[in-house]
Amino acid sequence: MPSNTFGEVFRVTTCGESHGLALACIIDSVPPLIELDESMIQPDLDRRRPGSTRYGTPRNEADQVKIISGVFEGKTTGTPIGLIIENTSQRSQDYSAIMNSYRPGHADYTYQLKYGIRDYRGGGRASARETAMRVAAGAVAKQVLRKLFNVTIDGCVTAIGEINTDKYDAKVALDNDFNFADNSKIDDLKALFKDLATCGDSVGAVVEVRAHNVPVGLGSPIFNRLDAQIAQAMMGINAVKGVEIGDGFEMARMRGSQARDELTPEKFMSNHSGGILGGISSGQEIKVRMALKPTSSILVPGNTIDKEGNVTSIVTKGRHDPCVGIRAVPIAEAMLAITLLDAAMLNKAQCFNVPQGFTIPSEK
Amino acid sequence: MPSNTFGEVFRVTTCGESHGLALACIIDSVPPLIELDESMIQPDLDRRRPGSTRYGTPRNEADQVKIISGVFEGKTTGTPIGLIIENTSQRSQDYSAIMNSYRPGHADYTYQLKYGIRDYRGGGRASARETAMRVAAGAVAKQVLRKLFNVTIDGCVTAIGEINTDKYDAKVALDNDFNFADNSKIDDLKALFKDLATCGDSVGAVVEVRAHNVPVGLGSPIFNRLDAQIAQAMMGINAVKGVEIGDGFEMARMRGSQARDELTPEKFMSNHSGGILGGISSGQEIKVRMALKPTSSILVPGNTIDKEGNVTSIVTKGRHDPCVGIRAVPIAEAMLAITLLDAAMLNKAQCFNVPQGFTIPSEK
Amino acid sequence: MPSNTFGEVFRVTTCGESHGLALACIIDSVPPLIELDESMIQPDLDRRRPGSTRYGTPRNEADQVKIISGVFEGKTTGTPIGLIIENTSQRSQDYSAIMNSYRPGHADYTYQLKYGIRDYRGGGRASARETAMRVAAGAVAKQVLRKLFNVTIDGCVTAIGEINTDKYDAKVALDNDFNFADNSKIDDLKALFKDLATCGDSVGAVVEVRAHNVPVGLGSPIFNRLDAQIAQAMMGINAVKGVEIGDGFEMARMRGSQARDELTPEKFMSNHSGGILGGISSGQEIKVRMALKPTSSILVPGNTIDKEGNVTSIVTKGRHDPCVGIRAVPIAEAMLAITLLDAAMLNKAQCFNVPQGFTIPSEK
Amino acid sequence: MPSNTFGEVFRVTTCGESHGLALACIIDSVPPLIELDESMIQPDLDRRRPGSTRYGTPRNEADQVKIISGVFEGKTTGTPIGLIIENTSQRSQDYSAIMNSYRPGHADYTYQLKYGIRDYRGGGRASARETAMRVAAGAVAKQVLRKLFNVTIDGCVTAIGEINTDKYDAKVALDNDFNFADNSKIDDLKALFKDLATCGDSVGAVVEVRAHNVPVGLGSPIFNRLDAQIAQAMMGINAVKGVEIGDGFEMARMRGSQARDELTPEKFMSNHSGGILGGISSGQEIKVRMALKPTSSILVPGNTIDKEGNVTSIVTKGRHDPCVGIRAVPIAEAMLAITLLDAAMLNKAQCFNVPQGFTIPSEK
Repeated sequence: MPSNTFGEVFRVTTCGESHGLALACIIDSVPPLIELDESMIQPDLDRRRPGSTRYGTPRNEADQVKIISGVFEGKTTGTPIGLIIENTSQRSQDYSAIMNSYRPGHADYTYQLKYGIRDYRGGGRASARETAMRVAAGAVAKQVLRKLFNVTIDGCVTAIGEINTDKYDAKVALDNDFNFADNSKIDDLKALFKDLATCGDSVGAVVEVRAHNVPVGLGSPIFNRLDAQIAQAMMGINAVKGVEIGDGFEMARMRGSQARDELTPEKFMSNHSGGILGGISSGQEIKVRMALKPTSSILVPGNTIDKEGNVTSIVTKGRHDPCVGIRAVPIAEAMLAITLLDAAMLNKAQCFNVPQGFTIPSEK
Repeated sequence: MPSNTFGEVFRVTTCGESHGLALACIIDSVPPLIELDESMIQPDLDRRRPGSTRYGTPRNEADQVKIISGVFEGKTTGTPIGLIIENTSQRSQDYSAIMNSYRPGHADYTYQLKYGIRDYRGGGRASARETAMRVAAGAVAKQVLRKLFNVTIDGCVTAIGEINTDKYDAKVALDNDFNFADNSKIDDLKALFKDLATCGDSVGAVVEVRAHNVPVGLGSPIFNRLDAQIAQAMMGINAVKGVEIGDGFEMARMRGSQARDELTPEKFMSNHSGGILGGISSGQEIKVRMALKPTSSILVPGNTIDKEGNVTSIVTKGRHDPCVGIRAVPIAEAMLAITLLDAAMLNKAQCFNVPQGFTIPSEK
Repeated sequence: MPSNTFGEVFRVTTCGESHGLALACIIDSVPPLIELDESMIQPDLDRRRPGSTRYGTPRNEADQVKIISGVFEGKTTGTPIGLIIENTSQRSQDYSAIMNSYRPGHADYTYQLKYGIRDYRGGGRASARETAMRVAAGAVAKQVLRKLFNVTIDGCVTAIGEINTDKYDAKVALDNDFNFADNSKIDDLKALFKDLATCGDSVGAVVEVRAHNVPVGLGSPIFNRLDAQIAQAMMGINAVKGVEIGDGFEMARMRGSQARDELTPEKFMSNHSGGILGGISSGQEIKVRMALKPTSSILVPGNTIDKEGNVTSIVTKGRHDPCVGIRAVPIAEAMLAITLLDAAMLNKAQCFNVPQGFTIPSEK
Repeated sequence: MPSNTFGEVFRVTTCGESHGLALACIIDSVPPLIELDESMIQPDLDRRRPGSTRYGTPRNEADQVKIISGVFEGKTTGTPIGLIIENTSQRSQDYSAIMNSYRPGHADYTYQLKYGIRDYRGGGRASARETAMRVAAGAVAKQVLRKLFNVTIDGCVTAIGEINTDKYDAKVALDNDFNFADNSKIDDLKALFKDLATCGDSVGAVVEVRAHNVPVGLGSPIFNRLDAQIAQAMMGINAVKGVEIGDGFEMARMRGSQARDELTPEKFMSNHSGGILGGISSGQEIKVRMALKPTSSILVPGNTIDKEGNVTSIVTKGRHDPCVGIRAVPIAEAMLAITLLDAAMLNKAQCFNVPQGFTIPSEK
């Protein structure tokens, strides 16, 4: 399907450039009769917005969302929900440096060669600003998931550069400026960011998101397995270069006798598979990890070429995040929410007539 | 889209269970006038088929493919290509052990709970036998890619359990029984498989695939970025639990000044991003790695429950691969081929009118 | 979506040429646990097959369908159903006349110009033979509709050339050789077909199909309204040139006070709208009419050109139906069944949580 | 696909209710480098908007469109185009009459039963107001069709109630208040509308649209034939109950020797088929007719029920069109433009490599 749409039934379509008039989003096939207003969407946007953390960009955008359709008297009506966020904080700026030259590690070169034109102001469509609409749509998905399926989703950063943790704690993450799962690493992180500021450099990160209380049966084989859909959802986020479900690459090193998750009537004895078996949710916690590369918007000069193929070099000024992973947590949560709701609705479409067999309780 | 279909324009739809009459596949929107016959499909099937390596299952299936439509006088006609492989090697067998109990690590539990019924013979639709049709469709995609876009694809195993290599060499891989990229590790691998046979256990693996001579401009932002589509393609293969593009998770540890790929008029100075920038191919080699978990079809007994929720245990007899990664190479190549061809055709649809600007030569 | 697929959730994909090895079909997202075997599909195929009526082609094809996947122990499993019909009755024939020249009124010219190649044997993919697979898939849809939604579908011919009827009677239609709704016109029809045989000419027809006991709520605005989907389904049948829902073109002549269907608690007071309001089923009988043009496969010579643009003329020999409308009834029923089931499943996906309000009883 | 989206590659998604904040639209996969600004969209909107004809509703809505993304320095960039029209003319009104009762012939009953809730203000999503966004998206499609394929589209009303014409003249239609193809019928029409005003009644209409200079090869068999897509596009417009391609239902009465369009090297000798053969454009003029039912928004009281199933009656006050067909012309043109552009782009995707054979010149 065209690339600005995600989901089969619960379907999100977005548009908007960094420096256009607005970002917009249309969400189709929303189940009716669900309570919804802007106050249920804004908090996730506030977690993502520039200015939300002192370790992100110093830009400050309100990212105020408005619902323009699909809600009546505080409830969804089943017609498409339109969302809009006006762009308010674009500084007028000198773009002559990047107008004709390609920033290394950015999408400048590929956009220009593919389309023969690009809106270079603030990164245009390739700007992470686009993800605001994912977060907004994800907040709607979260609300429906909670109301109709009792599913909840959270996330945190588990690694920044060489600093990492085995812990997963979404509550802890909400309380520090790095969305980090482990408070014992905060001092190390502060030192790292001080160093990054000195160097004018950036750093990569690992983000983990989880879904709780997921019913058995979401997702369907073969190509659109639930894990395949999640992989697409996450790899489609700016800067993501790797995705793991459950133990991920660690499982390549395991033996079958370790890796399989044995069953008991009360619970599974382990969750190496991350809550998905054969592409279908098992009722266990769904666990997804992703690697984000360090942003290329840095002050360290880089070698590159201009549009005519001449050698040149470039420095990316502007107000950039030294670690885009920090503000990626609500984006990843949003993509997981959209994916799971779509799968849950498709499951109703095909399997509404299936009587429930003996079921191991879902993992909270 | 329903789960047994992959691709938007070049679209592959498959069906077939392990123990049904046949596997079939319909490929839609194939460009016309491309030379095609069964002899261009069979070799990839032969690389995947059971019995192709002495370190795989001792089952021996001919996997003979027949083209039933869409080809006339040796050329594609633009109408859908139908492919069929008859199932010939199903042993009649005693399935009483798995009929009512769930093999841990398999899809038995999730299929049963989702659908209320499952064809337990040989794993049914969840059997890796299904991947034969991916390989067949992928061979068609490879032929079109080669003829119309000059793109080629190859792959190899780069890790089995704890044994791994930094090398990538598809030719070497074709010459050993493990499809392994590095001949210096063959003795270690033989020892490992001897041990696995003794224990009745299995082991995970990492497979890498690459595409060469890819034009700039394939794939489009936002949700269906080329890397997102590849992630879906790979994570949708049985047993895959992690996917990386380029340096993948390693990039989470890097700084921006290391990670960005600088440009020169002749070539990019590195390829950490794996040939994709902003979701669009850059003309560099496309590099994809994936982790496969060890199969749960092992002789080591496992704890589980039956359909009524009673505690029991299970041993998976039968003729199984100790490492499913070995035969996964042509499957991953096939999925990459289908994904790239679909993206190349979509690029023609939207951007056929774009004049070519200065282009860094594609990487062979 | 690629053109050989129909339906969003209940999704049918077909392939096969008139003179290839076989026709095949894959049906995805079939609800599980529905009783199904070949004997539930074959009767509809027998109504469509060449040789089924003495007023159709004298070709005689068995059109024997085989289920190759998706059914286990007599029930659907939720995995895709594969169907195959082998081609058995292709006469070896001299195609030199049509190989290089375009039959007027056929798709020869457009296929050749679009694809640069065409399988001219028996019309290739443009042959009505393709519709066998629609009928087979439709029979599966009918079975699911009946079991899960209690919906039934029937149809008849209501006009052939200038001979028409106001009646609609599917039972009468089953009993005569013209599938005609009105037995009082049979003598006229016999005379007409005698004349057609003498002239070597063909004639057009109108087919009507209806669905009974349809629940309220199938279909959704805006673009994919239920009537829009039905229009696509019917206009996609070979030779169809017009589609009407309810009173169709007659409504262009009406006033609003006549045309609206007033409501009472027991029933609607009329059904000008054909059972669909705002793109959503109303619980009334769904009524669809379609016009089929006369086939161009006739013995009367026609002016045309050859592939190089030279003037020539052509006579279509072979064993052709003088009125393709007669055998179109089960095809139109099949397309209606597929469309309704898909809509019913999508309705479950989005609106499963809606409590039932006061409902006028559905029309049988 | 979800119902508020149309098109496979050139894909239009809309949202918006009659009385919400705004209508919006996202158009995906627009070819880049096409000149575009609001002034190329507004004229078609002005032809559709309430207040554009003295024989339409006396409401007066500016329908001012704004481009919010996808255009840079006056050209399309290949990223999605966002369009927005603010709602400005909603009168505050007393909706108590229709809040709990169902207007006969409207979608009130079906929306309420399907979704369990409806925005009754001004018809909500079922209001014809929604079509403004189709017209806006269609204007974008027309611009691309003109620039890249040299195709143009026009339309007119050919029947209102019992008054009809054999003529087709889009220029004449632009010059009278009825968008009617034949100036000799204007006096009759004036008399008819005087009568309608007296009775408080409405009347149906027939609209015809045509595409000129269409290349051969657009559209593809089987299910998504070009005519099938057009049928869906048109039947999806509010109030449309019948669609014909070429001679439509008239062809049911013809013989094959009359109906087929013979070929010469210079042109086809007739165009009964309306420019489409086998689902593929033939290069002839594409001709589409559609019947619109009379609106049910009339002053004549109608019998109905309320939400609890009690008998009641209703009068639809407000500012309504006595003949919705008049303002439907630009809507039908828009849907034809979107359908053709999508087909043209898909044709590039699959058949870009086909060498051109001898081609009959396209019809202007």
